[in-house]
Amino acid sequence: MAEEKPAVKEEKPVKEKAAAENTVFIGTKPVMNYVLAVITQFNMGSGEVTLKARGKAVSRAVDAAEITKNRFLQNVVVRDIRIGTEELQAESGTINVSTIEIVLGMGK
Amino acid sequence: MAEEKPAVKEEKPVKEKAAAENTVFIGTKPVMNYVLAVITQFNMGSGEVTLKARGKAVSRAVDAAEITKNRFLQNVVVRDIRIGTEELQAESGTINVSTIEIVLGMGK
Repeated sequence: MAEEKPAVKEEKPVKEKAAAENTVFIGTKPVMNYVLAVITQFNMGSGEVTLKARGKAVSRAVDAAEITKNRFLQNVVVRDIRIGTEELQAESGTINVSTIEIVLGMGK
Repeated sequence: MAEEKPAVKEEKPVKEKAAAENTVFIGTKPVMNYVLAVITQFNMGSGEVTLKARGKAVSRAVDAAEITKNRFLQNVVVRDIRIGTEELQAESGTINVSTIEIVLGMGK
């Protein structure tokens, strides 16, 4: 008698993990690149996407969040905004850079 | 018999109004100028100071908030952060700029 394969065995926690990692890092590329990345994350079923940036890219992170919710995904809301400081090792020693994390969520 | 001057008459709502206007607008000057402005507001008795910036100055607003609370006023906390979009009239038509408001408060 052949044993039935336990169907639950196929379940992987990958999707769960991916959901927690819905982060878009904002750098020096044109802002629309990041807007597209955020929209793609939501279209793949994410309920929440976090935009992270530091230094001068902080402004661009705010731009990307605003453009996403005003122009493309009207039912996206800002769930949380956190700011912080990171220490970077530079040639001249340690420098501090500001960071921002903007959490966007679908619905309310 | 001389009437006593009613002492309460001297009360003005000016201080109340000033408290609501504890706003530091962040522009293109060196960040320490704004840090000093924020510290001055707190030293004058404000319980709350709001940093406002738009466009590229958004990053500098985050810098000013972080430097104030990490280096100078350790008991200051970030009470609220709001982001938004403003329409500006430019030669080429209307352009959208991102805005940020960071509310710093004394104690918790």
